[in-house]
Amino acid sequence: MIGHVARFLAECGSRRTVGLGAGGAGLLVAVLAQLLASTQVVWAEDPLPSWHEGPSKAAILAFVQRVTLEGGPDFVAPEERIATFDNDGTLWSEQPLYFQLLFALDRVEALAPEHPEWKEQEPFKSALAKDLKSVLATGRKGLLQIIAATHAGMTEAEFRETVLTWMKTARHPRFDQPYNALVYQPMLELLDYLRDHGFKTYITSGGGISFMRPWAPQAYGIPPEQIIGSSIKTKLEWRDGKPVLVRQPEIDFIDDKAEKPVGINKFIGRRPIASFGNSDGDHQMLQWTMAGEGARFALLVHHTDSEREWAYDRESHIGRLDKALDEALAKGWTVVDMKKDWKVIYPFQLK
Amino acid sequence: MIGHVARFLAECGSRRTVGLGAGGAGLLVAVLAQLLASTQVVWAEDPLPSWHEGPSKAAILAFVQRVTLEGGPDFVAPEERIATFDNDGTLWSEQPLYFQLLFALDRVEALAPEHPEWKEQEPFKSALAKDLKSVLATGRKGLLQIIAATHAGMTEAEFRETVLTWMKTARHPRFDQPYNALVYQPMLELLDYLRDHGFKTYITSGGGISFMRPWAPQAYGIPPEQIIGSSIKTKLEWRDGKPVLVRQPEIDFIDDKAEKPVGINKFIGRRPIASFGNSDGDHQMLQWTMAGEGARFALLVHHTDSEREWAYDRESHIGRLDKALDEALAKGWTVVDMKKDWKVIYPFQLK
Repeated sequence: MIGHVARFLAECGSRRTVGLGAGGAGLLVAVLAQLLASTQVVWAEDPLPSWHEGPSKAAILAFVQRVTLEGGPDFVAPEERIATFDNDGTLWSEQPLYFQLLFALDRVEALAPEHPEWKEQEPFKSALAKDLKSVLATGRKGLLQIIAATHAGMTEAEFRETVLTWMKTARHPRFDQPYNALVYQPMLELLDYLRDHGFKTYITSGGGISFMRPWAPQAYGIPPEQIIGSSIKTKLEWRDGKPVLVRQPEIDFIDDKAEKPVGINKFIGRRPIASFGNSDGDHQMLQWTMAGEGARFALLVHHTDSEREWAYDRESHIGRLDKALDEALAKGWTVVDMKKDWKVIYPFQLK
Repeated sequence: MIGHVARFLAECGSRRTVGLGAGGAGLLVAVLAQLLASTQVVWAEDPLPSWHEGPSKAAILAFVQRVTLEGGPDFVAPEERIATFDNDGTLWSEQPLYFQLLFALDRVEALAPEHPEWKEQEPFKSALAKDLKSVLATGRKGLLQIIAATHAGMTEAEFRETVLTWMKTARHPRFDQPYNALVYQPMLELLDYLRDHGFKTYITSGGGISFMRPWAPQAYGIPPEQIIGSSIKTKLEWRDGKPVLVRQPEIDFIDDKAEKPVGINKFIGRRPIASFGNSDGDHQMLQWTMAGEGARFALLVHHTDSEREWAYDRESHIGRLDKALDEALAKGWTVVDMKKDWKVIYPFQLK
C-alpha cells in the first residue's frame, strides 16, 4: 500500500517531539491516558502534509468542513459524498506519453517474435521503431490495431497478469521507477482525507478499466468496483470446461470528455459532489458535477512544474488543458499550481 | 424502508415473552445490564425468520458460516464477499408480465393523447388494446419502438420521476398493491443477513438500470451504485444552460444470459462468491460464480407456489427455468422450493 506507507512517513516527519524534564514521564502517562479516553485529539495532525498552505489547500479543507458539518446548511449525507478522480495527469503522471500507451508499445515489442510480418506492417513497424509520431499518424485505425494486438484475444485473467508483470518490471524512462511509483503524494493524501470524512472515492479515467484495476486498488486504496474507465468488449466463452471472459478487439466505451458524465451515471447512478481532473477531457465531468444542487467542488491539477514533473497546458497533445482552465479561472474552481502548492510530487521523494 | 420494517415486524412476532413473578423485576434489570455489557447475545435471533427449517435455509447458513470463520479453510476476506442477485422473479415477482413491461404499457396509455397516430399503428395499437400477444408478435423491432416511446427522449432525472410516480400510483392487478410491495420477504431477510456478515449485495438484472435505481435502494437496502441492469444509451446535452443526460432510443447493454458475467466483470471487476437467480437468464451468472476458486454458493428460486404466488418453470415464457434447473439439480446447487421453504411471500402478508 504505497499510499498508506507514504502517508505514514510524511506524518512522522511532521510530528513535533516534546522534550521531557525529570518527572515528566508520570505526567505524560496521565496526559496520554486522558487522550486515549477522549474520542478526538484536539491538535489533530495536518491531513494534507504535502500541500503548502495556500488557496488550494484552504479550499479543499473548507469544502470538506462545509459538507460534513452535521446540522449545517451544506451538510451532505455520507452516501451522497461521491468524489470522482481522473487518473492520467490527476493521480499519476502522463508524460512523456500516457503510461498505458507505453505499455502497449512494450507489448508490441514483446509479441513481435510471434509476428514477423509486423516488421513491414504499419502501425507495428513504427511502434517497433518507437517512432511515436508515425504511430499516431496512422490515426484511429492504427491505434485500434495496436489495441487489438496488445489488449484483446486473451482472457481478463490473462490480461490482468500481463499488466501486473509489466508494472513490476517496466521502468519509467525519466525516473527509473515502476510506473505505479509515479502517483502524486499530495493526491494520495487527498484521497485518504476524503475517505476519512465519509467520501466514496472513484476513478473515472479515459484509461482502460482492465488496465487500471490490477494495480490501482493498491496504489490508491480504491477497490476495483470504484474504478471506471474505457473498455473493450468481453465475451463469455468456455475453455477447458470453464467459463472465461475473453477480451474482444472492439471498443465498448470511451470514458472521456462528454462521455465521462455518461459513465458516472451508468456506473454510480449518482452525481458526484466533488470532481478532480487535469485536462479538457475532464471538463464535462467538472461541469456536470458543478451543475448539481447544494455544495459542490471542482479541482484541476495544473502541470506547472517543469523541474520536478512537467509543465504543459493549452498546447499539449497529452493532457491538453485549455477550455477547462478558462472556465475554472472564470468561475473560481480550484486550480492546483503543482509547483507552488505541492511540497513533494512522488512518494519515493519523501524524506 | 419496507425491508427493515418488515423484518422488524417479523422479529417481534418471533420473540418469546417471559412471565415474571413478584421480585423478578430486579433480577431482570441485573440480567439486562449483563446483556448490555456483553458484546453479543448468546441466544441470537433467527436471522431468516421467514424461512422454514430445511435444506435451503441450512445451506445458506452453512455457507455464510464457512466463509466468515476467521482462520477457517474457507474464509473469504470481506472485500471479496460479493453477492449478486437477479431481480425479476428472484427478489420480486414477475407475473403476469415483467413489471417493467407493465410500466411501459401504462406509459403508452398515458402518452397516447399526444400520439393520435398510435390508434392505427403497431405495436402501439395492440399495446393500447392491452393485447400482449400481438405486441410480442411485433418482435424485437416492436419492443424497441415501445422502449423508444416510453423510455427515451427525456432526461435521466425526468425518467426517474416518471418511474417514482408510477410506483406510487400503479397497482398490481392480482394483489392490488404497489409493485414494489411485491418483493419477497424471505429474500429481504437474506439480503440483510448477508450484509450483516460483511457481504456487498448487488442486483444484476435484465431489467433496466434506470428503471430500478429510483425505487430499489429503498426496497432492498442496495445503493444505486450496486444496481446493474440493462441500459439504453444516454447523451450529455445542454438545456437551459445546464448539462443534462438525455436518454437515447438505442440499446447500450442487455444484462441477460451470457452478458450477466460480462456486466458483473465490467461494473464490479470481481467474481461473486455467491449468486442468486430464478431462470435460465441467470444460468451463466451462476456458472461463472461457481467456476471461481474457493467456497462458492449458487441458489435458484423455484416458483412452485401456485396459490400464494405463481408456479412455473420449464415451459414459461416469463422466467423460463429449464437448463439452469437441470444443472442445479445435477450439481447440488441450492434450489428454493417457494411453497415448502418460505413461510410468507410478501412483507404485506406478515402478521
